[in-house]
Amino acid sequence: MRHGRTQGGPVAIRVGNTEWPKWQQVMSADPVDPEVLAGLARNAPLTRPRPGHADLAGMQKYGFDEARPVLERASARETAARVALGAVAAALLQQAYGIRLVSHTVAIGGAGVADDAPLPGPDDVAALDSDPVRAFEAAGSAAMVAEVDAAHDDGDTLGGVVEVLAYGVPPGLGSHVHWDRRLDSRLAAALMGIQAIKGVEVGDGFRTAARRGSQAHDEIERVDGVITRRSGRAGGTEGGMTTGQPLRVRAAMKPISTVPRALDTVDVATGEATQAHHQRSDVCAVPAAGVVVEAMVALVVAEACLEKFGGDSLAETARNHDAYLANVPDALRTW
Amino acid sequence: MRHGRTQGGPVAIRVGNTEWPKWQQVMSADPVDPEVLAGLARNAPLTRPRPGHADLAGMQKYGFDEARPVLERASARETAARVALGAVAAALLQQAYGIRLVSHTVAIGGAGVADDAPLPGPDDVAALDSDPVRAFEAAGSAAMVAEVDAAHDDGDTLGGVVEVLAYGVPPGLGSHVHWDRRLDSRLAAALMGIQAIKGVEVGDGFRTAARRGSQAHDEIERVDGVITRRSGRAGGTEGGMTTGQPLRVRAAMKPISTVPRALDTVDVATGEATQAHHQRSDVCAVPAAGVVVEAMVALVVAEACLEKFGGDSLAETARNHDAYLANVPDALRTW
Amino acid sequence: MRHGRTQGGPVAIRVGNTEWPKWQQVMSADPVDPEVLAGLARNAPLTRPRPGHADLAGMQKYGFDEARPVLERASARETAARVALGAVAAALLQQAYGIRLVSHTVAIGGAGVADDAPLPGPDDVAALDSDPVRAFEAAGSAAMVAEVDAAHDDGDTLGGVVEVLAYGVPPGLGSHVHWDRRLDSRLAAALMGIQAIKGVEVGDGFRTAARRGSQAHDEIERVDGVITRRSGRAGGTEGGMTTGQPLRVRAAMKPISTVPRALDTVDVATGEATQAHHQRSDVCAVPAAGVVVEAMVALVVAEACLEKFGGDSLAETARNHDAYLANVPDALRTW
Amino acid sequence: MRHGRTQGGPVAIRVGNTEWPKWQQVMSADPVDPEVLAGLARNAPLTRPRPGHADLAGMQKYGFDEARPVLERASARETAARVALGAVAAALLQQAYGIRLVSHTVAIGGAGVADDAPLPGPDDVAALDSDPVRAFEAAGSAAMVAEVDAAHDDGDTLGGVVEVLAYGVPPGLGSHVHWDRRLDSRLAAALMGIQAIKGVEVGDGFRTAARRGSQAHDEIERVDGVITRRSGRAGGTEGGMTTGQPLRVRAAMKPISTVPRALDTVDVATGEATQAHHQRSDVCAVPAAGVVVEAMVALVVAEACLEKFGGDSLAETARNHDAYLANVPDALRTW
Repeated sequence: MRHGRTQGGPVAIRVGNTEWPKWQQVMSADPVDPEVLAGLARNAPLTRPRPGHADLAGMQKYGFDEARPVLERASARETAARVALGAVAAALLQQAYGIRLVSHTVAIGGAGVADDAPLPGPDDVAALDSDPVRAFEAAGSAAMVAEVDAAHDDGDTLGGVVEVLAYGVPPGLGSHVHWDRRLDSRLAAALMGIQAIKGVEVGDGFRTAARRGSQAHDEIERVDGVITRRSGRAGGTEGGMTTGQPLRVRAAMKPISTVPRALDTVDVATGEATQAHHQRSDVCAVPAAGVVVEAMVALVVAEACLEKFGGDSLAETARNHDAYLANVPDALRTW
Repeated sequence: MRHGRTQGGPVAIRVGNTEWPKWQQVMSADPVDPEVLAGLARNAPLTRPRPGHADLAGMQKYGFDEARPVLERASARETAARVALGAVAAALLQQAYGIRLVSHTVAIGGAGVADDAPLPGPDDVAALDSDPVRAFEAAGSAAMVAEVDAAHDDGDTLGGVVEVLAYGVPPGLGSHVHWDRRLDSRLAAALMGIQAIKGVEVGDGFRTAARRGSQAHDEIERVDGVITRRSGRAGGTEGGMTTGQPLRVRAAMKPISTVPRALDTVDVATGEATQAHHQRSDVCAVPAAGVVVEAMVALVVAEACLEKFGGDSLAETARNHDAYLANVPDALRTW
Repeated sequence: MRHGRTQGGPVAIRVGNTEWPKWQQVMSADPVDPEVLAGLARNAPLTRPRPGHADLAGMQKYGFDEARPVLERASARETAARVALGAVAAALLQQAYGIRLVSHTVAIGGAGVADDAPLPGPDDVAALDSDPVRAFEAAGSAAMVAEVDAAHDDGDTLGGVVEVLAYGVPPGLGSHVHWDRRLDSRLAAALMGIQAIKGVEVGDGFRTAARRGSQAHDEIERVDGVITRRSGRAGGTEGGMTTGQPLRVRAAMKPISTVPRALDTVDVATGEATQAHHQRSDVCAVPAAGVVVEAMVALVVAEACLEKFGGDSLAETARNHDAYLANVPDALRTW
Repeated sequence: MRHGRTQGGPVAIRVGNTEWPKWQQVMSADPVDPEVLAGLARNAPLTRPRPGHADLAGMQKYGFDEARPVLERASARETAARVALGAVAAALLQQAYGIRLVSHTVAIGGAGVADDAPLPGPDDVAALDSDPVRAFEAAGSAAMVAEVDAAHDDGDTLGGVVEVLAYGVPPGLGSHVHWDRRLDSRLAAALMGIQAIKGVEVGDGFRTAARRGSQAHDEIERVDGVITRRSGRAGGTEGGMTTGQPLRVRAAMKPISTVPRALDTVDVATGEATQAHHQRSDVCAVPAAGVVVEAMVALVVAEACLEKFGGDSLAETARNHDAYLANVPDALRTW
């Protein structure tokens, strides 16, 4: 960056960690005097692998006798980097192509918004940010808040489902010619690669699998000379390509693994049964996860746009995008 | 291949298509005399994009005025290649590492096996292959068969859900250090990249998102000197790495898009409303999809094994795998 | 391909091998009756690794006890695939961007064209093809022919140097922002990755390293309102990007390794000193190598063009290319 | 890193720049008050593209009206990052596999070491570092020093040739089965991707191209029960794989492009003929380039080792490497 503008090279962003001063010795890159370390409670080996975390598999994989080197990297803190980079991608998407994204919470634990609740648009971000769980439906929001409160009272944690929409996406991003260039494939990888995500859907996903074919697709009609769809079940992709409809994906997040009412485990130093350390007290990270998922969607869509439109500057890629749309024949126009 | 053994280079497999003789002129790579083509009904431009297919987005993306060049590539025929290559990967997995896979159908339309139905093991393949829908539970199978029959009678189609399990997977495949090396991320991409797949889950997936933390993870205990888990909700991955438990993933397939009772669309040559061509009569492709999903899982797991164990021959990679397991300290042993 | 046009998917090309009938049993993918094989002289194990070939390292790497599985893959026959695919890339380059390539021989053994010999242009291909060694200078051609004749008489082989030029390349392909996106880096990989190539130069290469700075670069001037260069020493790249001047690269080929007057080796079955099999009688493959190098350059430049210009059809990528050039300010125009 | 040991995640290294304080406003990532900038001579637009630099192509590619955003990224300062990361790779190579590297200068301008000068070994690094041009031959060193002095007196610059050797490399790194996995291909990309490098050789490179086949390869014999070579012309690779001999590659560096006696160019703001800014006074960067080339070789060889040997810890990859060597049959042993 120079004077607020990118210059073609990679953009680097530093994210500070206010916790760092407490960990400077325990997590020092350089060796630390063993006597100093010996006096630090924080430096004690973590020998009780926590269910739901990378602890145990990480120790096996890397040959560690304790989990500290694993969990400090596997931490969801790492998602701060994704959000920061996603913001760059989102700026590119908006400035070059007019694409705008929005994320919202659709379920927490057993509560959620109605299946037919209206979808938020890109201008609804402020409203979502002012909702306690980033939901777009008052009743659903209230139910989710109640769910969180109840779990809190019970010393338990909750997962849920978030949804991301991208508006203004041109048709034809991704590809039907190779599976690994499909946009749905790349979105699935990006979402499932976020900590604690265990399920991914494009459009109606698993609900589509339960429907009959006559009720599962988005029929085509022509309205005022423009090809339109009667529904958005596919989530804006067909054949691994964007259709030009809003792109819509969902991610299912498991409940936070460090449960206040601690889970059973084994101390690998002694072989004794014990309970996992409880290191934090959040009940539910789902509303925050929406922001991370949105960032990953922005990164994937930005990459797909650059692949299709090329260009080394904002002006060049925007020009190619505009020319592409201008050259779709009227008979195929979906906007 | 030479005399039944690979030699280190890429393995090439040719899959014949019994339909090809009918299409030799229409799909000829070389130019064909226009007069010959003019007389062929099969060569007529496909100007009615089918909802749920790549037709419309493909025409827009590539600048085609008809959908034939799109649909012949987007065809699910392409999955034959995946199954063929997946068989090579599965042979590697079994011969080098003792990993074995099995796939089964868990839902078709609104019917399916019980949530607590037993999971098939690798020795159950023959039983599954003899079930009409490749299900592992008699009641569920009967319900799914009935669902298919009803849809057939109604001129409709069905989707569903398949599950793949991999047994004998060592702990530590994949990674927690970069999102795109996580095994769950790569599995999600591979599954979502299959035609008609709209949702992917690892382990209990979306169902986990509805549970409380105390009921969502796989608690750890030590039994007979070996670290074990009380459940398999995570599907055999934590932190993006295999745990050594059976790997378990699910894919949700949308109903076949070419519905006998045809869907509405527009003829892009005339702009008139019309109905999509109905070109095939299958009601449900879900049992077949299980085989494709299994192939993709085999390819992903094989790649992750080669990444961790390296090696240029079966003997070398197997030796490295065995040495890895032998060097996990007893205190961390999960097998 | 359909009716002579690509459709967006991968293009597959089959290259027949007239030698195949003789090798059908020895190189059969499927197992062959051992008794049948036992009677075939061609099937005898190759236990005398040939210096200069992949034989010995390949046996060590893959755990083979003879070299047949190595040499049949390492064969320069494989370059037929590169030439075939390079022809597709060259067609794309010409049709979309007006880029044309030409290759010629600049040295064979100790003979070659003069350092200041004129460079062939894209219209000189027919002339080059009619020269016995594909040289563009009569004196140099005659000297190289004499060199080949002398080596033939002595039962020896020769290497040499080929050069490829690409005309009509736009400025700005490749990148200065990451080393692995630089065009010179990618060209070097593509050329050094050809069998028997041991050296690669961009522009004057090693000769530039021996010059002083005042004589090593391409000074800039403005002629008739267009920025031009006084020389082409850099080979058309600066900072890892094309400058718009003709792209010019060279590859050094070692002499054919199977020398008629055979090289010393060891029989690994017996440990005895012996001589390498002499399996072919060509003296020099350098003129043919020029065609292979040209194909690899075409593939690399085509990839770099698609990266910069994007596009899913010939029309789209050509349009983006044209718009890029049209938008370079007059003050920076180099054409 | 934690306490001096890697943990499996990426290693990040920060390299400080003592020049930074002078450039904080001119190169600020954030916008700077235009009035402040207006007063800074350093901030003046660079409108005279320098021959031999990325300036002109970078302006065209990215749509800049001056070269500052290009040259600050294209700067050879960036090689500091390569050297830092190469040091990590070299440590891995030595600790896991016993591989050690050494680089030296073989030519500066028209002077250099003799063709048959002895090669430095890994224990000669201190000696090389104490030589004024990092040469391993006294006569050659003196000649190169004289060449530098003469160029300095003439206000000119020099390029040259550096060589890197890697000792202890196992046979079978790289591959003969795909061109882009060949080790020579990857080394060529890594070397040509360094600023100012215009030529790359593996082993004797271009000199091999001028020899006859009978004098160009490394004949094989058995000495004391071990397969050995009579020469090292191939530079330790055959068929794109390491042979186990010392790996040896060369890179040709062009003279520094900012020549004290400045080169002609055009001011793109005015269109007038002018001369390029002269911004630094080094005569020759060749000895320093050897260190950069060595770093890139370390990175490529480390990647190839991890590809062949796999492993997630030093112990695991070292164990796999040792087992590979132990399992090469005695009859094929080259060490």
